[in-house]
Amino acid sequence: MRMPTLSTAAAAVVLICTGPAQADPLPSWNSGETKSAIVEFVDAVTTPGSDSYVDPAGRIATFDNDGTLWAEQPFYFQLAYALDRVKQMAAADPSLAEKSPALKAATAGDLESLIATGHDGLLEVMATTHTGMTTDEFKETVGAWLETAKHPKTGRPYVDMIYQPMLELLAYLRASGFKTYIVSGGGIDFIRVFSEDVYGIPPEQVVGSSAKAEFVLTDDSADTEKIAELFFYDDKEGKPVAINHHIGRRPVVAVGNSDGDHQMLQYATRGADTGLAILVHHTDAEREWAYDRDSKIGRLDKALDEANQRGWVVVDMKDDWRTVFPWELN
Amino acid sequence: MRMPTLSTAAAAVVLICTGPAQADPLPSWNSGETKSAIVEFVDAVTTPGSDSYVDPAGRIATFDNDGTLWAEQPFYFQLAYALDRVKQMAAADPSLAEKSPALKAATAGDLESLIATGHDGLLEVMATTHTGMTTDEFKETVGAWLETAKHPKTGRPYVDMIYQPMLELLAYLRASGFKTYIVSGGGIDFIRVFSEDVYGIPPEQVVGSSAKAEFVLTDDSADTEKIAELFFYDDKEGKPVAINHHIGRRPVVAVGNSDGDHQMLQYATRGADTGLAILVHHTDAEREWAYDRDSKIGRLDKALDEANQRGWVVVDMKDDWRTVFPWELN
Repeated sequence: MRMPTLSTAAAAVVLICTGPAQADPLPSWNSGETKSAIVEFVDAVTTPGSDSYVDPAGRIATFDNDGTLWAEQPFYFQLAYALDRVKQMAAADPSLAEKSPALKAATAGDLESLIATGHDGLLEVMATTHTGMTTDEFKETVGAWLETAKHPKTGRPYVDMIYQPMLELLAYLRASGFKTYIVSGGGIDFIRVFSEDVYGIPPEQVVGSSAKAEFVLTDDSADTEKIAELFFYDDKEGKPVAINHHIGRRPVVAVGNSDGDHQMLQYATRGADTGLAILVHHTDAEREWAYDRDSKIGRLDKALDEANQRGWVVVDMKDDWRTVFPWELN
Repeated sequence: MRMPTLSTAAAAVVLICTGPAQADPLPSWNSGETKSAIVEFVDAVTTPGSDSYVDPAGRIATFDNDGTLWAEQPFYFQLAYALDRVKQMAAADPSLAEKSPALKAATAGDLESLIATGHDGLLEVMATTHTGMTTDEFKETVGAWLETAKHPKTGRPYVDMIYQPMLELLAYLRASGFKTYIVSGGGIDFIRVFSEDVYGIPPEQVVGSSAKAEFVLTDDSADTEKIAELFFYDDKEGKPVAINHHIGRRPVVAVGNSDGDHQMLQYATRGADTGLAILVHHTDAEREWAYDRDSKIGRLDKALDEANQRGWVVVDMKDDWRTVFPWELN
């Protein structure tokens, strides 16, 4: 897979973070309250003797993925995968399109008609494209797609649609002794295909939604196979539950961008001795997208209210980010 | 909690493993085929240019807990916790014993009558003692128990009933770039209370069976609460499924002692480019216990057959281990 991130921009970040203490660990963040709040928090939890000091073992940071680490417009990239994959499957087996209205719409690339089939229609498309194969086979298919698929607006590979300031924040936290995790409503197996190359987050530090799986043994193989039944939906109340299940520690830093992340941010801060909640607010219609309370994707409403009430850090993408995407640095 | 291990024996192991290359990383293992097979495998996967070389990122080792890292006789230590806890709860609320035959038997410490109530009776005792509280409250209760409870045969704290050769193997693998995981049929929250202190395995590297949990929010707290419904049973076929779910990589080294670990060992080796399966065979009735094909706890039958057929490493506890428990070194 292409690795634009680690080879260019992020490499510079790593150099910065391991350089002199005075170097700016967040060069793509404009100076101001947001950046200061982050740096002051990290200083406090990593300074021995500070009231907020956190032992390195407890330094856990959890990041949502869609809309937080990479873009999520005009629709979730994993849905783009599902649609492309249905077309590919229908090319090999044209009868697929006749199986249901949802599969017919998906095969035709008709997103509007697909959405009209409702939750069950979308689930059918996801099941058709995400299950009935081994985990390794699924990952290979996603990897091949990521190498060729292009974002509909920018024409760039999806793995380029990541946020440079977030790469810097991930690197800064890791350099400060944090373990960085993804905790996403998206599919755990999907994200694991690119998380290590793109974000420096290994598969064992990815938490996400998942299908059930079963063990399949033959004379010369032993695999897990993805089956068409939901195992866990890692969104809203599911995020703290999944964090407790996978990590077994409360996060010290939690970063999200939508109401789907609300409970994760509450979990990191409410009643905790030390916790930082960060919300990315998509306010930049020119460089990225601007959306919040009324958006169908990445709706940010109740979490924004609580952020304002409780003084969480709200990132104003337009004002706080000097750079949005890594390619702007080239 | 007491930490006999890290403060004494394991500290010596760490010194050995970070010392000169010639130092024996497994001093409690007698010389012979078993020890050689382990050392040769680790050398092969960590030597750049070797056909079996495994990149550090892929070096995952998974260990069963009961009967593999610590003892499991005369019955699982987590069951001992449940029985002690029921008695404690009944002392505060005597009506508990009248709720069911299982709780009556458990309250009386009558294991035979409890077992006679069958699977449902045992599940009721587990649900009563393991759910209906926050995860943090559960962990505090287990931590307090571990500080005072004593093993019925040796009279020692349960966290002393760990295997010195396994502490050395864990340390040796970590010094060789492996991430070490527990993958246990026991409860994930139970093991996380002591795994870091006792084995050097942090909570995020513990995989186990679990109850469902739900997010509970108040004005000044945000917690997960354990509820009386099984979420995942991490035994037999469940182990590869859980490894795929939590870690997302196939283990390179898998270590177990019973048929409950059979599928995990198959997953690490069958069809894999490089994999080592290790089975601990309890053969030492004098220093520990001797049991295998007919044991009710830790039954080892089919996995032993496959180990013999496929040349897995079988540890003969009596012959291969110079030391069994850390206290023997004092």
